[in-house]
Amino acid sequence: MQNTLENLIAANANFYKALASGDGHLMRQIWSDAEDITCIHPGWGPVTGREAVMRSWETILESPPQINCTEPSGYISGESAYVIAFENLGEGRLIATNVFRLEFDDWKMIHHQAGIARPTPAPKNVDKTRMH
Amino acid sequence: MQNTLENLIAANANFYKALASGDGHLMRQIWSDAEDITCIHPGWGPVTGREAVMRSWETILESPPQINCTEPSGYISGESAYVIAFENLGEGRLIATNVFRLEFDDWKMIHHQAGIARPTPAPKNVDKTRMH
Repeated sequence: MQNTLENLIAANANFYKALASGDGHLMRQIWSDAEDITCIHPGWGPVTGREAVMRSWETILESPPQINCTEPSGYISGESAYVIAFENLGEGRLIATNVFRLEFDDWKMIHHQAGIARPTPAPKNVDKTRMH
Repeated sequence: MQNTLENLIAANANFYKALASGDGHLMRQIWSDAEDITCIHPGWGPVTGREAVMRSWETILESPPQINCTEPSGYISGESAYVIAFENLGEGRLIATNVFRLEFDDWKMIHHQAGIARPTPAPKNVDKTRMH
């Protein structure tokens, strides 16, 4: 793999594949092995360090969420990158920031934050006839 | 300035100073001038590009929030970095990911996501007598 946007989006897709299928082995591969990794699950405080982050995913993967990722957008700065994407969970919708780092030519996840999303910015005087 | 953790935390503090004081000039300085910047305000969809991101802050800075940042933790990978921190707003508490990039020896913000936080991870069987 190389430092390309295509590979970044593929790494991001693998993360959601691991999450939706409850694949802990894949999840451990997707994340960096380094200690300086962090995670903010929706409504949680920060989880820091490889062991704690992996343990948090193990807990979540015991009941894999019905999740799919849409509209991923990737942004690369040298050997670092992040993806912002929607996470669709049944009727709910989250939005996430997934931070990656190039390690031995692979994009490895080093941070994830997900929170509640609305599909579009909420202006003060919205014309609801234009909303879908 | 240089690529140090101290300077990263200082850049992060400046962001909250601009936000709390409604200082649009400082806010424009804190963010990268580049086009590849993004922002996820709580409950919004993603805002992308310099003009749209700055416009979103102008709207917010019309009524500056009573906000202060606590427990910032910085993580540097070469010329990229991110800070996770709590944002305290009166009785509410958010948690944020702030992504920075080193540009001409300055840490410039390139992405921000804030969402609702709890102070600690939420286990399944919580002893509520121990919660504050």
